[in-house]
Amino acid sequence: MTPFAQLPSADGVWTDLRLAPEALGEGSTAVDDAAIVVQHGHIVWVGERRALPAAHAQGPQHAGHGALVTPGLIDCHTHLVYGGQRANEFAMRLAGASYEEVARAGGGIVSSVRATRAASEDELFALAAPRLQALLNEGVCAIEIKSGYGLSLEHERAQLRVARRLGEHFGVTVRTTFLGAHALPPEYAGRSQAYIDTVCHEMMPALAAEGLIDAVDVFCETIGFSLAETEQVFRAAQRLSLPVKLHAEQLSDMGGSALAARYGALSCDHIEHLSDAGIAAMKQAGTVAVLLPGAYYFLRDTHLPPIAALRAAGVPMAVSTDHNPGTSPTLSLLLMLNMACTLFRLTVPEAVAGVTRHAARALGLQHSHGQIAVDQPANFVLWPLGEVAELAYWLGQHPQPTVVRQGRITSHP
Amino acid sequence: MTPFAQLPSADGVWTDLRLAPEALGEGSTAVDDAAIVVQHGHIVWVGERRALPAAHAQGPQHAGHGALVTPGLIDCHTHLVYGGQRANEFAMRLAGASYEEVARAGGGIVSSVRATRAASEDELFALAAPRLQALLNEGVCAIEIKSGYGLSLEHERAQLRVARRLGEHFGVTVRTTFLGAHALPPEYAGRSQAYIDTVCHEMMPALAAEGLIDAVDVFCETIGFSLAETEQVFRAAQRLSLPVKLHAEQLSDMGGSALAARYGALSCDHIEHLSDAGIAAMKQAGTVAVLLPGAYYFLRDTHLPPIAALRAAGVPMAVSTDHNPGTSPTLSLLLMLNMACTLFRLTVPEAVAGVTRHAARALGLQHSHGQIAVDQPANFVLWPLGEVAELAYWLGQHPQPTVVRQGRITSHP
Ligand SMILES: [Zn+2]
Ligand SMILES: [Zn+2]
Repeated sequence: MTPFAQLPSADGVWTDLRLAPEALGEGSTAVDDAAIVVQHGHIVWVGERRALPAAHAQGPQHAGHGALVTPGLIDCHTHLVYGGQRANEFAMRLAGASYEEVARAGGGIVSSVRATRAASEDELFALAAPRLQALLNEGVCAIEIKSGYGLSLEHERAQLRVARRLGEHFGVTVRTTFLGAHALPPEYAGRSQAYIDTVCHEMMPALAAEGLIDAVDVFCETIGFSLAETEQVFRAAQRLSLPVKLHAEQLSDMGGSALAARYGALSCDHIEHLSDAGIAAMKQAGTVAVLLPGAYYFLRDTHLPPIAALRAAGVPMAVSTDHNPGTSPTLSLLLMLNMACTLFRLTVPEAVAGVTRHAARALGLQHSHGQIAVDQPANFVLWPLGEVAELAYWLGQHPQPTVVRQGRITSHP
Repeated sequence: MTPFAQLPSADGVWTDLRLAPEALGEGSTAVDDAAIVVQHGHIVWVGERRALPAAHAQGPQHAGHGALVTPGLIDCHTHLVYGGQRANEFAMRLAGASYEEVARAGGGIVSSVRATRAASEDELFALAAPRLQALLNEGVCAIEIKSGYGLSLEHERAQLRVARRLGEHFGVTVRTTFLGAHALPPEYAGRSQAYIDTVCHEMMPALAAEGLIDAVDVFCETIGFSLAETEQVFRAAQRLSLPVKLHAEQLSDMGGSALAARYGALSCDHIEHLSDAGIAAMKQAGTVAVLLPGAYYFLRDTHLPPIAALRAAGVPMAVSTDHNPGTSPTLSLLLMLNMACTLFRLTVPEAVAGVTRHAARALGLQHSHGQIAVDQPANFVLWPLGEVAELAYWLGQHPQPTVVRQGRITSHP
């Protein structure tokens, strides 16, 4: 594969484009014959071609061949870096094995922790790279990657360092999220408070000092960490001026979303069991609701997130893969668009905003990503599709778009 | 794209392969260090490498690099050839439009009939080709393609001719199914019997005489054709010695499966509402149950097909995309594997048999396709995966296998 720095520059004038609705930001309409001008890897002009100023018409010319253009997609919730995989556990469960039998055979989240700890950074990188490439091939230009399978300073560091390295290697915007409070590591069995203390007083400060943490997350759930433990982690993040987000109300209504909103959380994620009070708190705090239909589907959940109430309240909704080996081993953000529509009944414009504008906001990237706008880095996708609804409609498609990512052309039609 | 006839020959000795369980036929176990010998496009030897006879070890050598090998996949139920697409209808429904509003906007099956009739054969070919390519990229080596959007002699002929041409162009085994009795064409509104007479006395004999029909199918449903109409079509097929299959019990228990079994049907497809009597009849007739989880998912159906009863009765179960623009616009047979497991709770071995051995039988191809066996055309897939469960586990993956299709190497790792 060509190293990112050697990929052709996207600088110049892109014409014969059709801009998708919302590509230029909230409420923008489709533009049938559009142009985009890129200079030094940034967008310097975008609009109707006939309005293109002569001063901008110079430079290399890129023919869009009538492609449909969206902003670069954003996958705002992933656990992309881990050792092993859990296909065997999937097969065992289908063959009728109980959770106990799976656990005895070495399955469950502890198996991912064990495999992640056993892997070197190079091995973790090599395992995550093709997974990231699959997402990039579908137009992803920014991605969040969480830690949470290391569960010790050393191994959480390894995950986060690999996440940073993936961003540099592939020329993709990576936001790292420290999820030390993902699960209780085996060596802390029965000592949840002691582990949370370690997360807050040792792991988080050290990793933050190394520049490895862009945000902090907690798995707040009856089978995860309590509301009090979650707040302790949030306070530690606050002391370090790190933004927070939360795995909230996936299996039950713990009140995590309202807590997260009080800490100005970027997002609350999953939220199948989110209450009206949680919605109101999120709305007031400007917290994004991140919907994860892949996990909902994979777990055969039947309790839908409160989409209509979120819509009515005006809470921005994002859509993401939640890529992880246990509950959402998905490698396609476009499939998640379809599932967000089919299973959660998002409209097509909502789903598309969910992987662009609102996903950017869920990562605090709303000023640089998620729409095609002047002065932002050039991240946009040329789709060989007739209309934007086709992004969600074709189930399991791989349309092979041309992707302009961070100012470089990363594939060809 | 390289024309099929110019692709490299697969003739020679393939080594460093791991054969998936069932690759060599029912009940066969995994083979860790296997070899396959291909001569003149056919398999002449397969087994453990150490047992490879010296006489077969000569010729071009192909390194398998430890790939996992399955038989070529088979997609045994598709409506791949049609004009237009219905993404806008999908978007309208999500935005709250009623069926009536969709119909007024030109949606529904009649829109596919209109677009198919309006397209030339070249246009239909150009539209279907990338859809077929997407399936081939995932290892499909044989596919069924139905007519049923033409609904007149002229336009059904066009669909079937395009299906044949796709087979020749892409070097893939295509089985054509005449589905004239898919829907009542607008010009026959209120005259269902007259249309069935035309199907039986004009369309079917003419198209069979042109060699365009490998099997005959009917959409037997309250919103489709009655049991009596179905039987009339089956009798016409029987007169022409054409095997039959049936869209049966998708929305209600019409008793279509038992009828189809009486006519020795190759398969009954959908069968969400299949009765015990239908299962018994299918078992006795050797009829395959074709499961279509994509349509189940896309329509948000909640009535599961009777998997446990089919399993208990020993009815062979196949899995297919049902690719069609209205109810299953899917371009991934691997995604259907996942859905068959996740939604229908097939085990991994059942799902894999469902897209190989049992799918072959649903097309009457069990003597030439669906397993890796001596004297059969060389159709097998080298997957860059560790274990067979990964075929179903990774959701929305595109693993880019090396595919040996009809004796040629159709992609490279
Ligand atoms: Zn998660
Ligand atoms: Zn069908």
